[in-house]
Amino acid sequence: MKPAISGHVPKDTVGELGELALIERLCPRFPAGGDILVGAGDDCAVVRPDPGSSEDWVLKSDPVISGRHFFPGADPFQIGHKAVGRVLSDLAAMGAVPRWALLNLVLSKDIPIATIDAVYDGMLTLANRYGLAFVGGDTSQGSELALHVFACGSVPRGTARLRSGAAVGDGVYVTGLLGGSLSGRHLTFEPRIREGCWLRDRVNAMIDISDGLASELWHLAKASAVEIEVTTDRIPVSAEALLAGQPLTAALYDGEDFELLFTVPGEKEEEFLPAWTERFPALPCTRIGLVRAASREGGVWMRDRERVELLSRGGFEHFRR
Amino acid sequence: MKPAISGHVPKDTVGELGELALIERLCPRFPAGGDILVGAGDDCAVVRPDPGSSEDWVLKSDPVISGRHFFPGADPFQIGHKAVGRVLSDLAAMGAVPRWALLNLVLSKDIPIATIDAVYDGMLTLANRYGLAFVGGDTSQGSELALHVFACGSVPRGTARLRSGAAVGDGVYVTGLLGGSLSGRHLTFEPRIREGCWLRDRVNAMIDISDGLASELWHLAKASAVEIEVTTDRIPVSAEALLAGQPLTAALYDGEDFELLFTVPGEKEEEFLPAWTERFPALPCTRIGLVRAASREGGVWMRDRERVELLSRGGFEHFRR
Repeated sequence: MKPAISGHVPKDTVGELGELALIERLCPRFPAGGDILVGAGDDCAVVRPDPGSSEDWVLKSDPVISGRHFFPGADPFQIGHKAVGRVLSDLAAMGAVPRWALLNLVLSKDIPIATIDAVYDGMLTLANRYGLAFVGGDTSQGSELALHVFACGSVPRGTARLRSGAAVGDGVYVTGLLGGSLSGRHLTFEPRIREGCWLRDRVNAMIDISDGLASELWHLAKASAVEIEVTTDRIPVSAEALLAGQPLTAALYDGEDFELLFTVPGEKEEEFLPAWTERFPALPCTRIGLVRAASREGGVWMRDRERVELLSRGGFEHFRR
Repeated sequence: MKPAISGHVPKDTVGELGELALIERLCPRFPAGGDILVGAGDDCAVVRPDPGSSEDWVLKSDPVISGRHFFPGADPFQIGHKAVGRVLSDLAAMGAVPRWALLNLVLSKDIPIATIDAVYDGMLTLANRYGLAFVGGDTSQGSELALHVFACGSVPRGTARLRSGAAVGDGVYVTGLLGGSLSGRHLTFEPRIREGCWLRDRVNAMIDISDGLASELWHLAKASAVEIEVTTDRIPVSAEALLAGQPLTAALYDGEDFELLFTVPGEKEEEFLPAWTERFPALPCTRIGLVRAASREGGVWMRDRERVELLSRGGFEHFRR
């Protein structure tokens, strides 16, 4: 067995190691610094094309794979929608304006042309809505349908919102209603591009909710070196999560909500929600907690009427299931 | 059955239609114009970030999938090398300087960590050699190992070389020796980045040889609306192709040579090859033919000692095998 780079003896297979440990092992091998403002580890990478450029570039790729991100038999229009929606949601979390995209399409020979047409309908309908222009890619044969979408967006120089920007005293907010997305919303969600661009100048930190609220709160707290205290009964729960039985658990751990989680500086909070409601009257925005200084314990805390306790991280992780 | 967009009745499945017809069907659905200088259809897309930018951006994605682009059991270092090499070869064909890349990695649970480490070694060794910086991506689970690499490169404004630039009177050249790459070179080839950048100001049209020389000659002739006449015994044949029996067929149709095919303006030809040899003494560069006006028949012609005949297009096509 080859020795691990870190000096530890590695677990043998990807399945034994798990996705997060794999990513933690691989990410440090990618370069940093220079024209790379943000490398692997945030929702998107941020690069500066040249030292004088007025815009920074925001880069992201996301896959949608049969059996992983949708069930065989899913509506092909919605598969295409999700493939574009996933990457747009990541751009939204940086406050970026979508620009160009490429598609690597993997197909088996027996897929009906009508299915591919419908996948394209779903992709292009959503891409056109937000000004994301597909300019190329590749088509190749494989055993399962997969769409790998690569997107470039832009932000005014220095304004990309990161998960590392949360400051003590910030309020913590989420858009929309959480939980139960697997009953359908994970294929039909609306990426929060308009909201993300509007929020860019109003928030300290931002992230999209793909792996579940609890997991994203932990990412935010860790990247910003702060603690977050969330008030249980403020978490906005979706109708699907309510119907499914354990709504709070669903809202915390289901994932694929593709809503935005962000922190607003304390001194801007008073004007924030009224301005939001005026700009986005149809989309709920909820203050669920606050950012406080990191104690020795760190992390994310849940407050209900009886107690405050550490929130279990949970969240979806590939290879572990 | 859903009616085809073109008005023709479509063949039912991807396998019946074939890759080229599928691409011809899907590409026109992507947008064109505006800040998109070159959309789907060339080796890479070319975009202009803003009307005043001094550089254009060159975007490309390529997959490397188990069982399609390498055999199970291939050296993982070489798998990583090929994943980066494919996309660099496309950047080279535009004359672009590599900048940033993302990786979508698809893995099954039972892959040894040591294999992934070696794949990364191969990827990053080649990427570092040409200044391509990996800045992020995604890791997810699938049934077969696949690497989808997305790359951004740059060229000075307006200087990207296209397959559509060939002019009547140009000489037609290739780098390297062709054919037989499947015996090993398809996993170890050197992308022609330095050569592509040097050629950028010296050629009218350029393309990389991924699907086989014959196929790429046809792409060049069609995109440039010209005819190309190739002299059979000038085609530079690799040692592997010679060993394998039918060297000319191998050089024309094997594919995955990842060499450059380009056209040099007639008035620059006299000085071209001496300058090449001084700059790249270790890499052969061969004049194989010339560009002439399109007759009614169009296409690519082969001249040998006895006759001139239309060259069969051939070349690799996904789904058809």
